[in-house]
Amino acid sequence: MSEAFIKSRAAVAWGPGQPLSIEEVDVMPPKAGEVLVHIVATGVCHTDAYTLSGADSEGKFPCILGHEGGGIVEQIGEGVTSVAVGDHVIPLYTPECGECKFCLSGKTNLCQKIRETQGQGVMPDGTTRFYKDGKPIYHYMGTSTFSEYTVLPEISLAKVPKSAPLEKVCLLGCGVTTGMGAVTNTAKAEPGSTIAVFGLGGIGLAVIMGAKMAEASRIIAIDLNEDKFDLARQLGATDCVNPKAHPDKSIQEVIVDMTDGGVDYSFECIGNVNTMRSALECCHKGWGESVIIGVAPAGAEISTRPFQLVTGRVWRGTAFGGVKGRSELPGYVERYLNGEFALDDFITHTMPLENINDAFDLMHNGESIRSVIHY
Amino acid sequence: MSEAFIKSRAAVAWGPGQPLSIEEVDVMPPKAGEVLVHIVATGVCHTDAYTLSGADSEGKFPCILGHEGGGIVEQIGEGVTSVAVGDHVIPLYTPECGECKFCLSGKTNLCQKIRETQGQGVMPDGTTRFYKDGKPIYHYMGTSTFSEYTVLPEISLAKVPKSAPLEKVCLLGCGVTTGMGAVTNTAKAEPGSTIAVFGLGGIGLAVIMGAKMAEASRIIAIDLNEDKFDLARQLGATDCVNPKAHPDKSIQEVIVDMTDGGVDYSFECIGNVNTMRSALECCHKGWGESVIIGVAPAGAEISTRPFQLVTGRVWRGTAFGGVKGRSELPGYVERYLNGEFALDDFITHTMPLENINDAFDLMHNGESIRSVIHY
Repeated sequence: MSEAFIKSRAAVAWGPGQPLSIEEVDVMPPKAGEVLVHIVATGVCHTDAYTLSGADSEGKFPCILGHEGGGIVEQIGEGVTSVAVGDHVIPLYTPECGECKFCLSGKTNLCQKIRETQGQGVMPDGTTRFYKDGKPIYHYMGTSTFSEYTVLPEISLAKVPKSAPLEKVCLLGCGVTTGMGAVTNTAKAEPGSTIAVFGLGGIGLAVIMGAKMAEASRIIAIDLNEDKFDLARQLGATDCVNPKAHPDKSIQEVIVDMTDGGVDYSFECIGNVNTMRSALECCHKGWGESVIIGVAPAGAEISTRPFQLVTGRVWRGTAFGGVKGRSELPGYVERYLNGEFALDDFITHTMPLENINDAFDLMHNGESIRSVIHY
Repeated sequence: MSEAFIKSRAAVAWGPGQPLSIEEVDVMPPKAGEVLVHIVATGVCHTDAYTLSGADSEGKFPCILGHEGGGIVEQIGEGVTSVAVGDHVIPLYTPECGECKFCLSGKTNLCQKIRETQGQGVMPDGTTRFYKDGKPIYHYMGTSTFSEYTVLPEISLAKVPKSAPLEKVCLLGCGVTTGMGAVTNTAKAEPGSTIAVFGLGGIGLAVIMGAKMAEASRIIAIDLNEDKFDLARQLGATDCVNPKAHPDKSIQEVIVDMTDGGVDYSFECIGNVNTMRSALECCHKGWGESVIIGVAPAGAEISTRPFQLVTGRVWRGTAFGGVKGRSELPGYVERYLNGEFALDDFITHTMPLENINDAFDLMHNGESIRSVIHY
């Protein structure tokens, strides 16, 4: 343990399946290339719940979850030049180093510079910055936004305008950007496209918003929970379909029939491998493309007949909507500030850190889109 | 039966699993929008063998197989304007009407104008032009090039220069165009790309040729039959791999290790769903794309973990290399005539129609790339 650590309130995940525990933890100062960030607000996302459940094979405990935050730079480590104390930042679970094979490819946002240590729950030097009673606590997704103070590599921070409300634009740290980016970056949907969205959580709703911004001619929203349909329509869905309302047909048949052959683009925002198949097979022969966004349980596999692909459908996936965090995310914030899209619709609940377990309950019960923690 | 039919030598498939039978059949004159073609030469392709085996759920017997031909227009039906008697043509199993939703999309070569009747083994009016002793014989893939005289819809003919040797460019009616087009049209491989090719039959070798023309930096050829490696190298393969030489690793691991993370593009030219998975998983994280060309057995399914796609790999397929037959195939013939690629390497055997069953035997034994029938 080092000198000059600070105390921070944090929601600690001591083990899989347990509620988060609000603790005062010790946060070590940033090392070279690292930044200490004061988190102002953070969203609670399904991926946090997925890891907390124990289903994530990469999950390590104890850890501090959270990856959808907004904060202010509190202290910078040696050699940090791209952000300064007082800058407003969004933590990035997909960093952008600008130097690795992936960043230089121009073909992907999946910077691999610190992938290995990030996956192990530690900083690039192999150690953690979080301690409780002298025992280390792991980082999560390189972000750990469920701590009021957290340390990140410089390459994992997007600098955003100070005029952007952090308690709103924190949602651009994951779900909203993922959904919108999937439409515009990954699928590159053209005006007039027909689009199907499977699953109307935060990401699915962001897909609808992205589809609307892309001037899709038809946006078909699919969910088993019809309570989601009002907001889906409000954001731009032209049709809402409950698969249970069509007991004699597969959902892909329903969509194909509705669209004279299938949609141009579909998006799976659930993480269910059966839905992923439906999403592919509801695409139009010859050109329909399906984008997997949802994270499936460990070991689960997708399948289809190869004829689906040979006849022109394309199966792809996306992470963080294909958005390069440092170079492209600030543009999303600008567009939000210009009024091109709203974030309020996504924020159904706000609460202090102390009530964070309520956010998980609301999510599990399908009662929230996003809960945002205000520190 | 109509007036003015002509007699034609043909190899008739009376039933699944039986050798072809050389017969004199009656060929009806072309109806409106149809063309009678005198076939000069035809390749024998695995797809013919696949249907003859009985595995093709769409196969109808008795029929006249063959879909890789070159011929001369003998007679035109009412209203035919785009070809004239004496024109040299390549029959197209994927027509191009220029009017249907698919042709107008600009996104696919899969014209659907006559898909339904073609799949049923009949002309667009629902009847056949082939008879033997007054009993109808079905068409196959809309082409039936195993008959010296065959009838096709006008939209199923690509007009080619008379200077093109039909006994060579007939191979552009299927395999060679499929392989080359998969690289240039479907994958759009850039100069410097790394490429893996699974299966070194005619299509796989054509992929290698296309990869070479696309200036790929590395072309990895994969087959269990090492006899294919010499020709693969001659056409441009930089590495040849026999999966059996690596008993402790999957072939995708071998390729990933050889290429520092995987190839930019892979092509499955076998029709084996396990190989299709290997082809996807040997692609580079972030951007690798795998193209399925091979036709799998009825009901077989591909599978993988969705994480493969979420981390940036793309799974697609192609039919006839994405080439629009009427508007684009003549360009391939021109390129051949300009010496941009060779076809002789593909033609390992030639024979008269009477010996066509030998062509199937050679193919099954892996002894031929292509046998070409000279009528």
